[in-house]
Amino acid sequence: MLFSSLYSEMELYIAELQKTICDSLLQFDSAITRDHSWERQEGGGGLTRAIDDSTIFEKGGVNTSSVFGKLPEEIAKQLKVESMQFAACGLSLILHPRSPRIPSIHLNVRFFEMENGDSWFGGGTDLTPYYPHEEDFVLFHRTLKQACESIMPDSYEQFKRRSDEYFYLPHRGEMRGIGGIFFDYLREDDEKHFKLVQEVGNCFLPSYLPILKRRKDEAYSENDREFQLIRRGRYVEFNLLYDRGTLFGLKSHGRVESIFMSLPPTVLFPYDWHPAKGTPHEQMMEYYQPKDWA
Amino acid sequence: MLFSSLYSEMELYIAELQKTICDSLLQFDSAITRDHSWERQEGGGGLTRAIDDSTIFEKGGVNTSSVFGKLPEEIAKQLKVESMQFAACGLSLILHPRSPRIPSIHLNVRFFEMENGDSWFGGGTDLTPYYPHEEDFVLFHRTLKQACESIMPDSYEQFKRRSDEYFYLPHRGEMRGIGGIFFDYLREDDEKHFKLVQEVGNCFLPSYLPILKRRKDEAYSENDREFQLIRRGRYVEFNLLYDRGTLFGLKSHGRVESIFMSLPPTVLFPYDWHPAKGTPHEQMMEYYQPKDWA
Repeated sequence: MLFSSLYSEMELYIAELQKTICDSLLQFDSAITRDHSWERQEGGGGLTRAIDDSTIFEKGGVNTSSVFGKLPEEIAKQLKVESMQFAACGLSLILHPRSPRIPSIHLNVRFFEMENGDSWFGGGTDLTPYYPHEEDFVLFHRTLKQACESIMPDSYEQFKRRSDEYFYLPHRGEMRGIGGIFFDYLREDDEKHFKLVQEVGNCFLPSYLPILKRRKDEAYSENDREFQLIRRGRYVEFNLLYDRGTLFGLKSHGRVESIFMSLPPTVLFPYDWHPAKGTPHEQMMEYYQPKDWA
Repeated sequence: MLFSSLYSEMELYIAELQKTICDSLLQFDSAITRDHSWERQEGGGGLTRAIDDSTIFEKGGVNTSSVFGKLPEEIAKQLKVESMQFAACGLSLILHPRSPRIPSIHLNVRFFEMENGDSWFGGGTDLTPYYPHEEDFVLFHRTLKQACESIMPDSYEQFKRRSDEYFYLPHRGEMRGIGGIFFDYLREDDEKHFKLVQEVGNCFLPSYLPILKRRKDEAYSENDREFQLIRRGRYVEFNLLYDRGTLFGLKSHGRVESIFMSLPPTVLFPYDWHPAKGTPHEQMMEYYQPKDWA
């Protein structure tokens, strides 16, 4: 299969975005600690820029990958197509800060191309805070709204609603965080959708760095930390039970350590835990429900 | 749907087994710390006897449940039948000791009955050690072998092979522990299979207590503890990605905290971790592959 010129442009874009983001993070933390370039046996590979026990971030990374070859049987079945040649490239970012006063963040943009000529964009970003700093949640959502609507009017409302449905743990009746945006199978108007995906990618720095800066030196309690570790358990539940990217990565034989970079480093799964009445953590539990933040 | 007399006998058996096991554990640890009797909205319920931060056990429990009603759509699809009335009862036990010198253990026995007259037994038990005490692994497997073969000659070999396939993380190319036995859809000879399931259930005490007794006061290092917490991460990966009991529980709207009692309490997911050369932990990594222990 020959890649389209759009595929190559997307590859170029994610490589640049990876560099921009890593350079920014490196400016105020010795963040990127391990680079790993990997190859996939069936075709393609990626560049994992991992964060492992840095000052601000306990774990995380900024990954790009471009994989191609024959579509794995299980994924073909899921997409309801015959198995055929495919190519998929994307950038995934995940940051798990050490301090419970700084939210975890996730960003993904991706492009998928099939032998039969079908192709689509997908992506999303969501915030997982552990402390009720409402002004941070407003900043995050307003920045996303502005970015989406600069390309597609009304798209934020739609993508925000999809994110409320997507980043959701049905068995808990809770979201994993306070959501953000989510979209998939954006077809037909490639030019517009590529612009949108670029806006979303470029949005990471203005939607997250201001929060990181104002929270990084905030003191926190042992209870704050415990709550963070318990909510990270929900993060693990979501990623292993429901997250499409994680399951796609595993089924398509991506590099396991790059896929599981998304799993938080230290996690608690206590039995039947509930926050104490009147605490900021009880307040946070209410915010893990769909809510209008923009 | 009326339950068969076999269903009632199985319910009675698991209730007795739960009591026997809990009484035994209580003899040398203040183990059972929280009892919780729960009801399922669509029919049935269970009794969770949870262990939460006791001296020897960091988390665990002995659960019985009997649920019935209309088979959830997703499970019907999986079993390739129309949705109909069903009933399922079983006992699940999981123990996550604090000391990395004591293995985690899991046991499950279950009976499933359908409106169309189909019914079957299933179950299994497996050991997840974190330190290469080979004699413990031999004791565990020999006890299982004897139990299985007292009812069905040659069954151990078959069930052991199935456990090597079942308690396996394909994305890692590793088992979660050193296996044990696994069986499902045992049909036709109800009397024999019920006896087998009882032998397997009764086998918990002789297959585990001797190990617990000889390891509980063994000193351990920080490296041992770290290795345990990392391997517990594999336990979480297995349970959320592959374990049928967990996924059945969630899809049939069982009580979430009772289902997730199986998740270890404290877990590490470091990036791209490998054991140091020449350590007991490097040795253990080799034992997480199918091996003849009996």
